[in-house]
Amino acid sequence: DYHERLKNWLLYAQSQDITCAGALTDAKGNRALPPSMQKDPDLNLRVVEVRDDGIVVRGAKCMICGVAAANEIFCLPGGAYKEADKDYAVAFVVPKDIEGLTIVETRRPSDMREYEEGFDIPNDIGGITQAYLLFNDVFVPKERVFMCGEYKYCLNVIQYFTSTYRAAIGGCVAGQGDLKVGASIIMARANGLSIRTFYDKLIRMQINNETTFGMGVAASALGKEHPSGCWLCDSLLANSNKVHVATLPYETNRLAQEIAGGIGETGCLPSYKDIMDPKYGSLIKKYVEAGLDWETRARGARLVEWLTLGPGVPGCMHGGGSPDAARLMIRVSTPWEKWVELAKRVGGIKADVPEPPKPKK
Amino acid sequence: DYHERLKNWLLYAQSQDITCAGALTDAKGNRALPPSMQKDPDLNLRVVEVRDDGIVVRGAKCMICGVAAANEIFCLPGGAYKEADKDYAVAFVVPKDIEGLTIVETRRPSDMREYEEGFDIPNDIGGITQAYLLFNDVFVPKERVFMCGEYKYCLNVIQYFTSTYRAAIGGCVAGQGDLKVGASIIMARANGLSIRTFYDKLIRMQINNETTFGMGVAASALGKEHPSGCWLCDSLLANSNKVHVATLPYETNRLAQEIAGGIGETGCLPSYKDIMDPKYGSLIKKYVEAGLDWETRARGARLVEWLTLGPGVPGCMHGGGSPDAARLMIRVSTPWEKWVELAKRVGGIKADVPEPPKPKK
Amino acid sequence: DYHERLKNWLLYAQSQDITCAGALTDAKGNRALPPSMQKDPDLNLRVVEVRDDGIVVRGAKCMICGVAAANEIFCLPGGAYKEADKDYAVAFVVPKDIEGLTIVETRRPSDMREYEEGFDIPNDIGGITQAYLLFNDVFVPKERVFMCGEYKYCLNVIQYFTSTYRAAIGGCVAGQGDLKVGASIIMARANGLSIRTFYDKLIRMQINNETTFGMGVAASALGKEHPSGCWLCDSLLANSNKVHVATLPYETNRLAQEIAGGIGETGCLPSYKDIMDPKYGSLIKKYVEAGLDWETRARGARLVEWLTLGPGVPGCMHGGGSPDAARLMIRVSTPWEKWVELAKRVGGIKADVPEPPKPKK
Amino acid sequence: DYHERLKNWLLYAQSQDITCAGALTDAKGNRALPPSMQKDPDLNLRVVEVRDDGIVVRGAKCMICGVAAANEIFCLPGGAYKEADKDYAVAFVVPKDIEGLTIVETRRPSDMREYEEGFDIPNDIGGITQAYLLFNDVFVPKERVFMCGEYKYCLNVIQYFTSTYRAAIGGCVAGQGDLKVGASIIMARANGLSIRTFYDKLIRMQINNETTFGMGVAASALGKEHPSGCWLCDSLLANSNKVHVATLPYETNRLAQEIAGGIGETGCLPSYKDIMDPKYGSLIKKYVEAGLDWETRARGARLVEWLTLGPGVPGCMHGGGSPDAARLMIRVSTPWEKWVELAKRVGGIKADVPEPPKPKK
Ligand SMILES: Cc1cc2nc3c(=O)[nH]c(=O)nc-3n(C[C@H](O)[C@H](O)[C@H](O)COP(=O)(O)OP(=O)(O)OC[C@H]3O[C@@H](n4cnc5c(N)ncnc54)[C@H](O)[C@@H]3O)c2cc1C
Ligand SMILES: Cc1cc2nc3c(=O)[nH]c(=O)nc-3n(C[C@H](O)[C@H](O)[C@H](O)COP(=O)(O)OP(=O)(O)OC[C@H]3O[C@@H](n4cnc5c(N)ncnc54)[C@H](O)[C@@H]3O)c2cc1C
Ligand SMILES: Cc1cc2nc3c(=O)[nH]c(=O)nc-3n(C[C@H](O)[C@H](O)[C@H](O)COP(=O)(O)OP(=O)(O)OC[C@H]3O[C@@H](n4cnc5c(N)ncnc54)[C@H](O)[C@@H]3O)c2cc1C
Ligand SMILES: Cc1cc2nc3c(=O)[nH]c(=O)nc-3n(C[C@H](O)[C@H](O)[C@H](O)COP(=O)(O)OP(=O)(O)OC[C@H]3O[C@@H](n4cnc5c(N)ncnc54)[C@H](O)[C@@H]3O)c2cc1C
Repeated sequence: DYHERLKNWLLYAQSQDITCAGALTDAKGNRALPPSMQKDPDLNLRVVEVRDDGIVVRGAKCMICGVAAANEIFCLPGGAYKEADKDYAVAFVVPKDIEGLTIVETRRPSDMREYEEGFDIPNDIGGITQAYLLFNDVFVPKERVFMCGEYKYCLNVIQYFTSTYRAAIGGCVAGQGDLKVGASIIMARANGLSIRTFYDKLIRMQINNETTFGMGVAASALGKEHPSGCWLCDSLLANSNKVHVATLPYETNRLAQEIAGGIGETGCLPSYKDIMDPKYGSLIKKYVEAGLDWETRARGARLVEWLTLGPGVPGCMHGGGSPDAARLMIRVSTPWEKWVELAKRVGGIKADVPEPPKPKK
Repeated sequence: DYHERLKNWLLYAQSQDITCAGALTDAKGNRALPPSMQKDPDLNLRVVEVRDDGIVVRGAKCMICGVAAANEIFCLPGGAYKEADKDYAVAFVVPKDIEGLTIVETRRPSDMREYEEGFDIPNDIGGITQAYLLFNDVFVPKERVFMCGEYKYCLNVIQYFTSTYRAAIGGCVAGQGDLKVGASIIMARANGLSIRTFYDKLIRMQINNETTFGMGVAASALGKEHPSGCWLCDSLLANSNKVHVATLPYETNRLAQEIAGGIGETGCLPSYKDIMDPKYGSLIKKYVEAGLDWETRARGARLVEWLTLGPGVPGCMHGGGSPDAARLMIRVSTPWEKWVELAKRVGGIKADVPEPPKPKK
Repeated sequence: DYHERLKNWLLYAQSQDITCAGALTDAKGNRALPPSMQKDPDLNLRVVEVRDDGIVVRGAKCMICGVAAANEIFCLPGGAYKEADKDYAVAFVVPKDIEGLTIVETRRPSDMREYEEGFDIPNDIGGITQAYLLFNDVFVPKERVFMCGEYKYCLNVIQYFTSTYRAAIGGCVAGQGDLKVGASIIMARANGLSIRTFYDKLIRMQINNETTFGMGVAASALGKEHPSGCWLCDSLLANSNKVHVATLPYETNRLAQEIAGGIGETGCLPSYKDIMDPKYGSLIKKYVEAGLDWETRARGARLVEWLTLGPGVPGCMHGGGSPDAARLMIRVSTPWEKWVELAKRVGGIKADVPEPPKPKK
Repeated sequence: DYHERLKNWLLYAQSQDITCAGALTDAKGNRALPPSMQKDPDLNLRVVEVRDDGIVVRGAKCMICGVAAANEIFCLPGGAYKEADKDYAVAFVVPKDIEGLTIVETRRPSDMREYEEGFDIPNDIGGITQAYLLFNDVFVPKERVFMCGEYKYCLNVIQYFTSTYRAAIGGCVAGQGDLKVGASIIMARANGLSIRTFYDKLIRMQINNETTFGMGVAASALGKEHPSGCWLCDSLLANSNKVHVATLPYETNRLAQEIAGGIGETGCLPSYKDIMDPKYGSLIKKYVEAGLDWETRARGARLVEWLTLGPGVPGCMHGGGSPDAARLMIRVSTPWEKWVELAKRVGGIKADVPEPPKPKK
């Protein structure tokens, strides 16, 4: 009755307006080995006890985004498992303050500046955090458990999750990209230059944004309905998008820094405190002023820094899974032999085109 | 009553199963000047006489695809015109054998091989042609004229056409890409190698294919209905796609050649005639044979050549308009100032961020 | 007698083992205007008084690298100037503690961590700083002045400097790149994976390193001797290299993050302080351990963060001038018309191929 | 006394001004197997008989460049061989008309046009050809044999050859690139546009040219003298250059086509014969004329076609070995563990960083 339990929790979550962090990534330990072969069995989150009224879990979920702002945490298995790993096939949801759960936030670039006065962190209306969740024998009541041992379905869970994530992330990254475009134009003008000077670079940035956005739209548009009523995005398109999401924003960042100048590249600007210094601050202001007032230029530069080198850098490379994991999915989802048949037809090739036999050693 | 005329022709065309070539591109002459300022007024197709029962047109439409296979030719204005160019604002449809129209086919790479025996052109089930259409005072009856002087609407025509084209071409180019993937796998195996040797390159090719396909889907999915009932694709997405269509297939081609080996790169293989030579042909066959039989390898190599250097190379760079024309549309369609506002909000910038005043000379 | 003065200072500097920071970049103000047309004449460093025994200068040099570690500061003009800007044509060298000079260090990513205990800044044997140098009516004695008003030679100064810089920086960036390769391999192994898993990415990184290194070597090897005995690097090669230096390290960074995993991408790891916490620190250690011990993995991750998002990111984009400045030099140094002649010869073109006449407005 | 024989032949070749083609590439057959394990032992060139006065060889050398223009052919082993393949470790030089040698030229794109009148092949002062050399029991006299069975030295031969080739090819490809730049400017002007319209693209092309040129220079400059007196290029730089040589010209080609317009992209222009047609030729001429006379534009378009899709396309991808062969050499030549040590030092890592143990199956 997992389906029933899940529906109940969903209704409850909606009625209480629950915000939820999604936790898949385990500590994992040695990446070359499955959970059950790790030196320490806790390196992936696992069921250590099954009771009548629920289960007890131990392990860690790492780099989980948005925990600070969430009410509850939804845990899912971190990989596709075989029978030996069936204790790791576990899904459940818990409130953040449950007993036995320790939450440790990770660092992010320039994080300490958030404790400083002024705009060296330009942004106080947003930002993201990631947490390590240490589950030290946490008890989860039955009605909040949605998988427990059904290892065969882990692959499904992962694929349903990643194809949705890798479609949706395209729009998210595009929005950040729009912001980078805006910040770049601000810097151009603050430097005294027109948007026209940089159209070639801005258009390149915009194409990058449209690409991750568009690929996400396409993956959704060509998705299929699951019997349960859920919409599942197209795997090939969603995973191709993941590769773009892990690549294009780096080019967009580079172009933002190119437009901004050295002041934005490494945040190469005195601190807010220095700028406000009663003795020499006015001199700094005088020299930071350019096409627009000093404050706009300084804030713009800090925004570019924040977006490209600071705490505003999202985990677009690995969030939602590594690009090589996406490439693997593309490999699995592409109908290679169909393309071979197509090419045979156009090329007038009649013979079979089999894989070479495995060489004997 | 253009709309009525067009509907009538459409009904007629459907009932007769008419195939149509679309002709926009004029000879154009000097690209820096509008039609009316060219040395020769005929360099863009124009109305030279308006009669009661129709119009007389003169000029040339160049590089028109599919004329050989078409029944009729649909001419549209080649650019967005101002009042001075209103004679050039003309749209109509004519049968291919109309009086005064000379059709000259253009060349394509390795075209003469199509007259040879054998598989040096691997493909006899497809191929494209382009034509120069020389209109030497062609009379077009009234009911086949859909625009004549309404220069203000040329921009609309162009945009409706290009946003549809630049969405649709993504799927077209993706299909060619699938073929290139298939041809590459054939060559790998014909060389004795497994598909596994080249997965990284093949996945890159596949991502390219998915990208132009997906962007086209997205442009369609996010299109809007025109009051006439037509569906108009999203301009930003369609034009971003045009830039991909003009770029990614070149990388796909390069990878196909990389996988195929020198034999595919420049078609570096003796001719069919040499291979079939009674004296030394058997020796060539002996040496062309590798992982698969000589014929599969030779045909596969010719297919790669055909697709990447031969008559199978489509005009993905300029067909449907040049990439810089698409970039211009992106420039015009992007809400730059909205991104500035977004960045101001996130960066805590209160001041105005205007364009710098034009410098006085 | 500038040459004599310079020689004397050089001998002195060598005998005293003087380390020197090079300061070209002015505050500049509005980038669209030359120094003399700025709202505030001090926005570029200028001579405000010429005395018998020396000169008095005012203005700011910004983002100057290595000032903290330098004994003296060598100032050069920041651009190529016309007659109206001749007060800005000034070159001199001063000790760091000269009267009237205020030095304000700029920020860099994650800078506050340098004040923390532990390895969240992994590195205490290196690092770079940049400073704003505020010259508030600084007197420079005659024998330390090497240019004063000779505006015609500013272009030479800039070109001699940039072609040397843009050659040499290639090796510098390559060395950082080698470090990134090393850090990536450490992370692979710390994650339990073999170097073999990532050879394609590592080889790409290495090619990037070899490219900036090689182009720098080539620019030097094909340089020419200046009559003074100095060696001047080849401008086309050095400036082409600058474009690589501003591009390739971004790809190298991206690949390092791809190999390292999320832990390296955004430094997504609890702080040293948390890891050392007596209560839950041991749990974090348990979960950070993977292929190698927790400390190697944590330090490796911080190293990747430091190199790609932290204070170890050098200013390779703008340091030594912006890429567009380099592109401008390439434009100026390339013999375009010679390539036209070459193409005419090979293409059998006999006619002249002139630029089109400027269109009249 | 191979060294003595080689010296003698070199003196003879110089005195007679002998031009030589270099033949390494064998037919190879199945790429996954060494010569001695092929179905047919002749798939790599081999010694079938050793006599007192010389040797008899059988097999084929494929895709050999410049045979048509050469006096003699210098054969070298095509790979690094083990003992089992020692019959394939053979090097010698023969005149082109030696008994038992059949030479079959390969095709190249649009080759038949060379037999046509006019400029559809724009170029009659150059061009390259490749040949299949079929050695059917060819006798080579002793004094022209320089290796026969010394399989251990094959790797050296290959490496000496490839590092020189992969350095030198950079300059060759750069020269072709200069030509592409020139042809692009001609097309811009022939279309009525100024070089200024395309500076961003032309500069990108020029950087590509400078890169392969510069890397070649660097590989030579940092080469080392072999005890024999030969100069051996730096392997890392030369092989990195091979990867550029196999990549950058494709971008340069794409940009040339982008600048030229559809007329250059696929050679989308009526044939010379059509242009000269007494009936409608004058109309074509009228419509081909644009910024410059029709002939310059037509010849320019054919030149772009020739360079990017025609017989002027050199084998830069596979000539001198495939890019993956170069990547393998980079892998072998890079001091990976040295970069690890470097990173350990900077990152303060004290522990060993070994490769993970091979997993047991
Ligand atoms: C900012 C940020 C936010 C995140 N938010 C969340 C979140 O909200 N919820 C959540 O569940 N997770 C989250 N993650 C974690 C993310 O899902 C993981 O980073 C991602 O799945 C990759 O795992 P990893 O970081 O452990 O990398 P690793 O698994 O260590 O991978 C590192 C590299 O090694 C490769 N690799 C790994 N194993 C193998 C193997 N066996 N063979 C070959 N190659 C291999 C990978 O492809 C990758 O290139 C976040 C990450 C970041 C950086
Ligand atoms: C294979 C193929 C099939 C085609 N099929 C069709 C078809 O079926 N129907 C049809 O109507 N057309 C067709 N075309 C033509 C195609 O639409 C044109 O090639 C395209 O619009 C570009 O025009 P052009 O070739 O005249 O290039 P040009 O206009 O000469 O452009 C060349 C370059 O100059 C730039 N440029 C041009 N003018 C300016 C300016 N004023 N300022 C700055 N830059 C400028 C362009 O951006 C481009 O980079 C086809 C083309 C090809 C190659
Ligand atoms: C880490 C770091 C270290 C540095 N170290 C030193 C040092 O040791 N010594 C030193 O002298 N300098 C140093 N610099 C400064 C460096 O030389 C400058 O950053 C560089 O010259 C660019 O100047 P800018 O930053 O003022 O950028 P800007 O001049 O503001 O340029 C920003 C962008 O605008 C473009 N642009 C500028 N003006 C125009 C125009 N008129 N028309 C069109 N486009 C234009 C530029 O090409 C660039 O893309 C350093 C910079 C950094 C980031
Ligand atoms: C225009 C041109 C001119 C040439 N001129 C000359 C010349 O003058 N003299 C001369 O000797 N040669 C010449 N060559 C041949 C050239 O050296 C070869 O093309 C090159 O060495 C690659 O060999 P191949 O073409 O047989 O490709 P293949 O060996 O078939 O390789 C095809 C692809 O498979 C990969 N591959 C091959 N084997 C393996 C394997 N075992 N495992 C994994 N991957 C593998 C390759 O890396 C490549 O990506 C020329 C080639 C061309 C195209």
